[in-house]
Amino acid sequence: MKRPTPPIEWADDHIRIIDQTLLPAEVKIVEIRNAAQAVDAIQRLAIRGAPALGAFGSLALVVALDEIQPRSLSEAHGRLEECRTLIGDARPTAVNLRWAVDRVIDQATNNADDLPALRAALIREAQAVAAEDEAACNEIGRLGHELLRDANVIGTHCNAGRLATAGTGTALAPMYAKAEAGEPLRVLASETRPLFQGARLTAWELNDAGIDVTVVPDGAMASTVLSGQVDAYIVGADRIAANGDAANKIGTVGHALAAREAEIPFYVAAPTSTIDISLATGNHIEIEQRDAIEVHEIRGSRLTPEGVAASNPAFDVTPNHLITAIITEAGVLRAPFKDSIAEALSRVGRS
Amino acid sequence: MKRPTPPIEWADDHIRIIDQTLLPAEVKIVEIRNAAQAVDAIQRLAIRGAPALGAFGSLALVVALDEIQPRSLSEAHGRLEECRTLIGDARPTAVNLRWAVDRVIDQATNNADDLPALRAALIREAQAVAAEDEAACNEIGRLGHELLRDANVIGTHCNAGRLATAGTGTALAPMYAKAEAGEPLRVLASETRPLFQGARLTAWELNDAGIDVTVVPDGAMASTVLSGQVDAYIVGADRIAANGDAANKIGTVGHALAAREAEIPFYVAAPTSTIDISLATGNHIEIEQRDAIEVHEIRGSRLTPEGVAASNPAFDVTPNHLITAIITEAGVLRAPFKDSIAEALSRVGRS
Repeated sequence: MKRPTPPIEWADDHIRIIDQTLLPAEVKIVEIRNAAQAVDAIQRLAIRGAPALGAFGSLALVVALDEIQPRSLSEAHGRLEECRTLIGDARPTAVNLRWAVDRVIDQATNNADDLPALRAALIREAQAVAAEDEAACNEIGRLGHELLRDANVIGTHCNAGRLATAGTGTALAPMYAKAEAGEPLRVLASETRPLFQGARLTAWELNDAGIDVTVVPDGAMASTVLSGQVDAYIVGADRIAANGDAANKIGTVGHALAAREAEIPFYVAAPTSTIDISLATGNHIEIEQRDAIEVHEIRGSRLTPEGVAASNPAFDVTPNHLITAIITEAGVLRAPFKDSIAEALSRVGRS
Repeated sequence: MKRPTPPIEWADDHIRIIDQTLLPAEVKIVEIRNAAQAVDAIQRLAIRGAPALGAFGSLALVVALDEIQPRSLSEAHGRLEECRTLIGDARPTAVNLRWAVDRVIDQATNNADDLPALRAALIREAQAVAAEDEAACNEIGRLGHELLRDANVIGTHCNAGRLATAGTGTALAPMYAKAEAGEPLRVLASETRPLFQGARLTAWELNDAGIDVTVVPDGAMASTVLSGQVDAYIVGADRIAANGDAANKIGTVGHALAAREAEIPFYVAAPTSTIDISLATGNHIEIEQRDAIEVHEIRGSRLTPEGVAASNPAFDVTPNHLITAIITEAGVLRAPFKDSIAEALSRVGRS
């Protein structure tokens, strides 16, 4: 497997990220040297994906601290308190971001008695956040790889890969594991209208790693699957209810219906942090409607007639009966999901 | 209902068409005054849709004849013979085009003894071709309207409307009938990647007729249907096998799977000329792969990374068990389709 470009790197006094807004046309590495640059990178989606944002926001605390050159521990603490909202809330819906920022600040301030120790503790804890996510990705990759051992052609949707995590991704982690093992692999990436995360990001990151990837229009996946050309599907999840109903990027449930009709497995890959047991079923997951302009226009070019409405739901919910298994870092969960999810959460200490 | 713009009109010495390549940004009427202009309009898809091409190609014979100002009947016959291929084969896959051109030439040349009679016969037969298609659309509209009486929100895919026929369309004919009857109606038009016929053409023609239409990304239709927001689906067909399996624009079968899961009707609307009884099942329908560039680029702007493959099948086949009924001008056909299709063909004299 080709050595892929790292989407986030810590470089002793700055963070280096791939600017995802420019992918795939340009692989531009942006250096983040202060809080304003970090917030800007988050807000304009140069970096995206909940786990990736957690790792990035944690490291951003270090550059935010360095930036003011604090002369006392209390000045440093003040700066970090400011960063809880400044960086932690840079994207309000990204729960991982605020969670990681709070964790790193709390851990570092509680365990450091002077400025050098504080800075070292921030870096250590930020790297722990990233390392834990990377480990979860690796375990999902390992478990998924076992399930997908005989799958040569695998379908996926949106981007749940290296670009969205601090590791090899969730849905894409088993593909990297297969490639690493030298197994034959061809990935079909559905393009994922309206924002084309499949066509742009999944295609880019798999191709960058030397994995054979073909972009397929969203509407063309069903017949491709029904004609027997696909061995399995694996997708990520944004939120999973207590019964296993899984919210993911709009379009996912259509793929699940095609997989059932073709009798191929449909796997959801996600860390247990994605499971929200306060939601009994997927019916309780609110579906955000994004701006209709994303449907009306592509790169400033108008597709639809003026005066016509457009619907633009960001997510859909795949009901649990269409899901073969949910692959988490705490094991492969199968129906009845209510029980397997409860057991997995108790294994990670969330019961 | 608002009076819609006619896509094809005969204006005594020229044809007036809407240039569909400019829709929906601009409604430009193009005047076709000679054979070269007619061929150009067909080849650059200014006019499209098999039935619409039949009607247009028939009228194009008149301007092609006028253009050379023939001084004898034999000179006129020579010109028309030339037009069988010149106009009739302007798009090789459009069977209706060559069929209509041959029919109009044969009918006119066999029944006219002088030049004025020949020209009049060409116009008369061309208008008969259009009138028959219009009548088929009306009957499909009437039958579909009965089936969709209680459907207020209807989903469709691609464009099977006025812009594709010489009448009110196939899938869209019942919508015009409902609007005419003053029934409540909201149409969800799936955008139809890669060429956006839903977003561009269906949205334009329904909006032009004052019908409430919302454009929905292809991948967003499944969850919209599953959430109970859609009462029925109706789509067109490019070719129907003897067992009722129906080939239509890529993406159609995904909508059919969603309709079954939501337990709403999924109707296919098409004239009996679409039925190809030489094909026992849909497995015998060859699926054309179009140029991958349509997936890679939108209006010249590249979406995917260089070096990555793209799949671009033009059609898919919806298996008969997912189809509630096939609405033709010879009646509403239901399972077992092998029998109902054979009966319909015998009613139109094709047994």
